[in-house]
Formats: sequence, C-alpha cells, structure tokens
Amino acid sequence: MNVLWIFAHPERRSLNGALRDHGLATLRGLGHPVRQSDLYAMGWNPLVTPADHRHDPRERFRVGAASERAHATGALSADIRAEHDKIAWADALVLQFPLWWYGMPAILKGWFDRVFVQGFAFGVTDGQGRTRRYGDGGLAGRRALVVTTAGARPTGLGPRGVHGDTAQLLFPLLHGTLWYTGMRVLPPLLIPGADRAGPADHAGAAAALDRRLRGLPTDPPLPYRTEAGGDYDDDLVLRPDLAPGRTDLGVHLTTPT
Amino acid sequence: MNVLWIFAHPERRSLNGALRDHGLATLRGLGHPVRQSDLYAMGWNPLVTPADHRHDPRERFRVGAASERAHATGALSADIRAEHDKIAWADALVLQFPLWWYGMPAILKGWFDRVFVQGFAFGVTDGQGRTRRYGDGGLAGRRALVVTTAGARPTGLGPRGVHGDTAQLLFPLLHGTLWYTGMRVLPPLLIPGADRAGPADHAGAAAALDRRLRGLPTDPPLPYRTEAGGDYDDDLVLRPDLAPGRTDLGVHLTTPT
Repeated sequence: MNVLWIFAHPERRSLNGALRDHGLATLRGLGHPVRQSDLYAMGWNPLVTPADHRHDPRERFRVGAASERAHATGALSADIRAEHDKIAWADALVLQFPLWWYGMPAILKGWFDRVFVQGFAFGVTDGQGRTRRYGDGGLAGRRALVVTTAGARPTGLGPRGVHGDTAQLLFPLLHGTLWYTGMRVLPPLLIPGADRAGPADHAGAAAALDRRLRGLPTDPPLPYRTEAGGDYDDDLVLRPDLAPGRTDLGVHLTTPT
Repeated sequence: MNVLWIFAHPERRSLNGALRDHGLATLRGLGHPVRQSDLYAMGWNPLVTPADHRHDPRERFRVGAASERAHATGALSADIRAEHDKIAWADALVLQFPLWWYGMPAILKGWFDRVFVQGFAFGVTDGQGRTRRYGDGGLAGRRALVVTTAGARPTGLGPRGVHGDTAQLLFPLLHGTLWYTGMRVLPPLLIPGADRAGPADHAGAAAALDRRLRGLPTDPPLPYRTEAGGDYDDDLVLRPDLAPGRTDLGVHLTTPT
C-alpha cells in the first residue's frame, strides 16, 4: 500500500516525533512506499483565505463555492494541489497528532479545512446524481488510521471516563471527515500518559504502533453506518427501527437533553 | 455582564458577519459592555511554536511545561497576553464560527491551543491541592455561549441525524474545553441551512440569536457532571451507579464497540 503519513507536532524530539520515525521505518520494512506531510516542518498555512482560490476580494467570499470553482479550474494554491497529489497517490492515510483540547492541533485542522475541498473530497455524485458520502465519496478506496497521544490516563478517556471516550471525542474527524469522504476508518490508536512517558512507555507505544501498522491493510474498520445503505430517511435521520449502536458514550449529562 | 465576542470567519459580508454585527448591537442595547476578538481581522496566528514561550530552540520543546513557565514569568507572546486580559475582564464569552468539518475553523482552534495555557485556564489547584477542572478551574465564574452555522439541514444534526448531534459534535469544545476550565456552558445555538439562507432565514437567525443573548445571564447551562462533586472514581471513571445521561447520541455504529 502507498501510505501518506500526516504529522502535526511542533517538536521532532518529542514522543510523537520518535513514534513517527519508528512508524515510517516499520512501514518501509513492510515494503510499503511512504510519503509524508510534516506540517510544522513544511510551514503549513492552516488558514482558509480568498487567496487560496484566486478569489476577487471585491466579491463576497463564499468558501464552499469559491473552493469548488478553484478546484475545478486548477486555480487552487500550489500547496493545496500538492496535498491532493499525495492523497491521490495514497492507499492509506496515517494521521498523527497530540490531542490538544480533545482535538487536532490547529495546523492539522487547517489541513482539512484547506485540502478537503468540494469536488475533491466531497460533493461528488454517483451515476444517479446522488451525493456520495458517509462510506462513499471522493476519497473512497482508502484506509485511514488516527494515532494520537494524550497527557491523560487511559481510563479517563474510556467509555465512562471523565474526558469522554476517544472515539467519541474524535467523532468529528473519524466519522464526520474521514468516513464522510469515503475512507475506511480504523479504530484510533490512543497513546495515553504521554506527559509522564519513560523509556518503557516509549517502547510499549512503539510496539502498539507496529501492531496497528502491520494491520493497516487488513484490520476491520469501524462499523459506521452507510448513507447509501438506506439507514437514514429523507431528513437524514436514522430510521426508527435502528439502534444508534452506542449507549455508553460518557457525555455525562445529569439529565437527558 | 462584560461580554467577549470571539469571531472566526474570513468574510465579514457573510451570514456570520451579519449575525456578529447584529449580536454586538443587541448586547450593547441591553447595556452590556462588549469587547471583540475578530480573529481573521486581527491576523491571529493559530500555531503553537517555541517562539510563544521564549523557548530556547536548542532544548526539547515540551508544550505544556514551556507554556506554563512562560505564563508564570510573564514571557508569553504579547498577543496571547492580550487575550488573557480580555478573558480576565469578561463575565461571558460568545464563540461564533461556521462549522467546518464538524468543528471549529483552524484559526479558532489555534486560539484555544495558544491562549488556554496551563496556570491560566487549567492546571490550577484548590486549597487542598486538588486540580480544579470540569465545572471549576481558571475560568470559573464565566458563562460561555457557542453560536455556529452549518450548511446542513437541522434534522441531520439532531440526536439521530446522520452527522451526529450538535452537542455531541461540539463535546470537545463544550465539555472538554469550556466546562473543563470552569465555565458554565449554555446549550449551543446552531443555525443550520446557512448555505441556502435567504433574507427570511437571516431574520429568523437574528431573532434566535437575540433570544439567546437576552438569556445569556440567566439561561440554565448544560447540566454536565462536576469532577469535584464525586461522580468519578479515582481512575476518573463515572461511578457504576450513575447513568451517563445520554443514550441516543447518533454515533451510528452497527455494532457496539
């Protein structure tokens, strides 16, 4: 598999940096061609602006329409097009970042904001004119693995943990972004206790990463529902006979809302 | 109430821009002093780097420790300290942004990444040396209201909607950031269908915003559990006799994981 590794940490001498180096070596050892987007090292610009789309600043800037038009006409910024080329080449994406405020660092969020434009990652239609998304879409055929470190203890990030479950916290990324655009999303790899990690923890994290990288082509993805499968009605609401599938997500409201 | 309005949209001639202008006028009409952080207009830098903390680049950059030290010694970047002054002044924060990939635009995520440093927003202790967080913390005493626009239809963002429920999608922000640091978090205001909004929709959105701004001092906050209230055990796991409170969060796995 061609693997694109997206790395979003400001310090290469960090646990994250060590795991990135280790993971790339593992993938190469397994025979997978690898490319990388080291966002801090690239000086990646995370901000959507009219300049990305050669948009006339006298006109109102409508982000969706402007980016779709720029993509269709080849007018997108060169740095965005370079990422498109890498994604087009890739059979799998690995997204590695420290969990900051229970989400991606801004530099990585801005990678999605700028790179996943309409007509490329989403907003594509099938032969019947239906929008392909949630299990199908512009990036169908690819696999995605999220690798994230957290300072917190693992129990606090479980289904009944005070911070919320890892898969729940990452739901906007795993389901709303990667699955939305058609990728098969593997269960995320969480490496907790990163702030207090010693050499033994580093070795354990590297071994856990190796297991997940060996399983990259074959591990079963998260069993999200597919929109094309008919699970949702015309209002995009889950059909009443279907269970949402999770009842223990740790949102921790004292009363239902 | 002193209100700090944080605005994260690249186009002031947008629905978001119109709502921001309208909301600020409403607050002033109600007699509330208002300050603003218009992040795009300010040219806000969303990237955590060693330069924020006057960190010696020859040493490994540990984000948490470096930012805590810089905060304690007054060495944080001037733009971060200016935001701290605004937050210290404010009794309430309004956070307004378009929902991009089911989360904040990078410029706003980077506002939290850089501004909410250890020793200011979190990592503060009480008289017994316990960490104050989840309902208590460095920003206790403040209220927070999230106002967000989405292109999607409202039903798709409900509890059984294909995109996930709004409060679930915003859980890392509402619970993991605002509640974590001690703020009272009001239910978010979602303005759906933004891509297709006409004049009548604009008027309806402005009226909905007015209702929420009038209720800013008194509306009941989301009833999240408090860590200090003893709801979690020593592993930070919800006690077994307590229900997580939500069973219909729209995660849409076909099987429990």
